Amino acid sequence: MKRTVLIHSGGIDSTVLLGHLLAEGREVYALSIDYGQRHRRELVAAKHICEHYGVKHQVADLRALAPLFGANALTDAHVAVPEGHYEETSMKATVVPNRNMLLIAVAASWAMSLKASSVAYGAHGGDHAIYPDCRPVFADALDKAIRLADWHEVCLERPFVGMDKTSIVQRGVELRVPLELTWSCYVGGAKHCGKCGTCVERKEAFVRAGVKDPTDYLA
Amino acid sequence: MKRTVLIHSGGIDSTVLLGHLLAEGREVYALSIDYGQRHRRELVAAKHICEHYGVKHQVADLRALAPLFGANALTDAHVAVPEGHYEETSMKATVVPNRNMLLIAVAASWAMSLKASSVAYGAHGGDHAIYPDCRPVFADALDKAIRLADWHEVCLERPFVGMDKTSIVQRGVELRVPLELTWSCYVGGAKHCGKCGTCVERKEAFVRAGVKDPTDYLA
Repeated sequence: MKRTVLIHSGGIDSTVLLGHLLAEGREVYALSIDYGQRHRRELVAAKHICEHYGVKHQVADLRALAPLFGANALTDAHVAVPEGHYEETSMKATVVPNRNMLLIAVAASWAMSLKASSVAYGAHGGDHAIYPDCRPVFADALDKAIRLADWHEVCLERPFVGMDKTSIVQRGVELRVPLELTWSCYVGGAKHCGKCGTCVERKEAFVRAGVKDPTDYLA
Repeated sequence: MKRTVLIHSGGIDSTVLLGHLLAEGREVYALSIDYGQRHRRELVAAKHICEHYGVKHQVADLRALAPLFGANALTDAHVAVPEGHYEETSMKATVVPNRNMLLIAVAASWAMSLKASSVAYGAHGGDHAIYPDCRPVFADALDKAIRLADWHEVCLERPFVGMDKTSIVQRGVELRVPLELTWSCYVGGAKHCGKCGTCVERKEAFVRAGVKDPTDYLA
């Protein structure tokens, strides 16, 4: 059975990817990263989703690195989370420098320890140009480095890279993924705020997918 | 002035590299990584060396990741540090999976926050084939990924890649680098043990360089 480490944020993309990999017959180890994000609620969501599937779940605690990140809205409570559409320039305030390389490097370390054959993450066609480390050219270069980092070869997989978020929601429904357990909101309250970039994107994806949105939004 | 983040272990290679970069007129920020290594003494050495040079020194604490690394001699007190020559197969027990990518990813995050133009580390021609992530082909792939990870381009530098440890010691003497402050031993006692792979290599480098070894070895 193919063993895979999945970077699992507790959001829609990585949760549908979890269902997708299990449907392929993979043995999945889920890794969530605690980098001091304000929306720590997603770590709880990730735990519940992994319990639902009976999948091993590990949280890698990178909070001690916060002093290196500089001020940004995802880790610093003094910087406001921008409202409005995800694609707007204001969302640049949510960038943690080099976040994806950090997450993937940690996942790759775990994969090498587990003798897994891959690290998978939920990058998709709708990922945004404001995040340079979401670009396929970045992922291709990092895949090459990971394959060379250990005598036991691990590759980097992005099974959803050709899909948009709407198709991912549709795939989730097909696979009976518990979308109601997923978390998107960057604000980090008890309920989804309904206004921040990720909430707006979440609402749109359900509408476009023609699927009833199970989320209880504040607004 | 060119700003550079140096990965600084407190050992000979990265300490001579610190002197070398300062001699080039760089503005250097030194980063040491606490990954729960048994030889934590090297973190103290790194601090003293940075104080000597008046260089900003930051420790990135990755100890919370230890559960992902599996058993190895550098982080697990139950696994013995092999004695004898560094190049022997037994030194494989000192491999932390994907260690270099982790260290470099953290350094690159800091470099992007600081708007530095490069990350430098002390990889050299004598680095060992037992560490796959010491190979130039790995560093080249990772350099490409780092350049793509942020709109602010950061590159990965290995100024000593064409030198062996003997030449590095000689360069250190030329630059009046305080080699007596550096730490190599993997065992982690109050003095250099004189027997582990890194101590054997340290002794050899001073002998071959024709330089008086300032180290106080136990044996």
